[in-house]
Amino acid sequence: MKHGGDLSEAIARFGGAPESWLDLSTGINPRPYPVPEKFPAQSWQRLPDRTSELHLIEAAREAYNVPAGVGIAPAAGTQALIQILPHVMTGGAVAIAGPTYSEHAAAFARAGRKVISAGLDALPSGVTHAVVVNPNNPDGRITPRETIAGAARQLDKFGGALIIDEAFADVAPECSVVDLCCKLPIIVLRSFGKFYGLAGLRLGFAIARADIAAEIAAALGPWPVSGPALVIGRSALSDRQWSETTRAQLNEQAGKLDAALRSCGLDVIGGTSLFRLARHRDAQAIHAHLASRQIWTRNFDHAGDLLRFGLPPDDAALQRLTAALTSRSMAR
Amino acid sequence: MKHGGDLSEAIARFGGAPESWLDLSTGINPRPYPVPEKFPAQSWQRLPDRTSELHLIEAAREAYNVPAGVGIAPAAGTQALIQILPHVMTGGAVAIAGPTYSEHAAAFARAGRKVISAGLDALPSGVTHAVVVNPNNPDGRITPRETIAGAARQLDKFGGALIIDEAFADVAPECSVVDLCCKLPIIVLRSFGKFYGLAGLRLGFAIARADIAAEIAAALGPWPVSGPALVIGRSALSDRQWSETTRAQLNEQAGKLDAALRSCGLDVIGGTSLFRLARHRDAQAIHAHLASRQIWTRNFDHAGDLLRFGLPPDDAALQRLTAALTSRSMAR
Repeated sequence: MKHGGDLSEAIARFGGAPESWLDLSTGINPRPYPVPEKFPAQSWQRLPDRTSELHLIEAAREAYNVPAGVGIAPAAGTQALIQILPHVMTGGAVAIAGPTYSEHAAAFARAGRKVISAGLDALPSGVTHAVVVNPNNPDGRITPRETIAGAARQLDKFGGALIIDEAFADVAPECSVVDLCCKLPIIVLRSFGKFYGLAGLRLGFAIARADIAAEIAAALGPWPVSGPALVIGRSALSDRQWSETTRAQLNEQAGKLDAALRSCGLDVIGGTSLFRLARHRDAQAIHAHLASRQIWTRNFDHAGDLLRFGLPPDDAALQRLTAALTSRSMAR
Repeated sequence: MKHGGDLSEAIARFGGAPESWLDLSTGINPRPYPVPEKFPAQSWQRLPDRTSELHLIEAAREAYNVPAGVGIAPAAGTQALIQILPHVMTGGAVAIAGPTYSEHAAAFARAGRKVISAGLDALPSGVTHAVVVNPNNPDGRITPRETIAGAARQLDKFGGALIIDEAFADVAPECSVVDLCCKLPIIVLRSFGKFYGLAGLRLGFAIARADIAAEIAAALGPWPVSGPALVIGRSALSDRQWSETTRAQLNEQAGKLDAALRSCGLDVIGGTSLFRLARHRDAQAIHAHLASRQIWTRNFDHAGDLLRFGLPPDDAALQRLTAALTSRSMAR
């Protein structure tokens, strides 16, 4: 499976109605920010206007602690940014250390760019740009701030840039490097949909030095974000109480998930509080067994012994997962 | 003003609350397709899935009469397609005959491509691609089908392609060339938001030979369309009765608007039934006078004697426009 979060494949292979499945295949918060009930009809009808876009940008600036002077380019999801970045950034090879979110390498390769497998602490000569997902998906690895700053300084000498994909940084805000964007050629990507549990809305941000952010915005063109996303995004990003409570709740839920996985013999080796990565020599059989119970998890082409678990939405769902895992151990 | 449909500029210059303005600056249907009241929360929350995308594509195939075998790539608005097309299409100069929608030339120029001002009936040698808006914005000019086919055949020899932007073809379905996509390198762009009056939703389609459409889809990447747009788009595009009634209503409204403009001394010189283009030597003064009455119309840098009028939503709005136009004639 290429990505989590699409039950189409699960249903095609294992049957069942969408609502009967427990989808743990993504890192999307299963308890979403509540979409306002009274939704302004105008936001569907009118072209998204500049004033609403500026309000969204200001809310993002507050939520992500973006210094004044650093630019913010909103987009219809981080993925839209990943697709356009290779066309905005100057030529040259790109270093990406895997395993990580696969679409960065795919987008650069599709744009005809050379992608080299290398991490920030040992950038090969000849590399102009680099990409790091921080915290990384799927293992949750955090790249130290000094490593990021050092690599950005090095790439700056060659007119390059460093993309830091902070898709999951809402649950680890201390690792964000948006403040480094003032002086270094760092492009931070922030995903709205994961932490706020509204992945269908399509909203994401590129945060970078003002001139770089302006170039990205120009490449995206006018009206990059839908009217509803402007309204809901602004409202959610301004709700500091919701985000603080949610961070604490996700932490607690992740702890419970870890305990359940360990009690069933899985070795939790990483993740963030939006997903957990676990190792088991029978990972593929566990994936299939859970699927037969209509629980969908994420497995990986590159590592047959790993499974990624999104957070169950509540204790009942956690019990359903635990029961399904236990029934397999019993049956062996 | 660069584009219509943004009251931010109008309000900044002339004051007033958004709801007090009558916005006639766009070609967006002012009587939108009704957004379902019971909206599935899942479409906000989950990543848009492949099954829903296929349903949307099938609805678009029916609505736009796209032959089997021709590909359809959905996007978050036609603008998103305009931004990515220069990166998908092979190198070479692009012919665009103005005045027309300005973003095509802007996107190719930004991607470093040479843009030549030329129409399809006299493509200069050395041109690889061409763009035509059909019917054209703002004058409503329709390019004959044989001209389009002939130009596409010529560009095909150089490995080029012909973009036909059918943003307003819903109200003139007879001029659509989607059927020519089977054998010729024609990329038809269809906008959802204008005819269905849901411009804030961000939904559009590229229709082309299957291999070309697949390349465009790959360049857009996964999840190009929001969950709500998948649901609403499918529902609206499947509603043949609504589209037929709406076409007739828009036609009638456009006729009434023409009569009102003519009675006030403006010369209606073109348009579609989603907007009318009118000439008057005092066009700029009329634009300012209407703005002082909080009626926002579209004027043009390239032609000081032209104004474009979107359709008033109802007879009361039409009367408000007529009264404002009349009060100026009286005051002179």
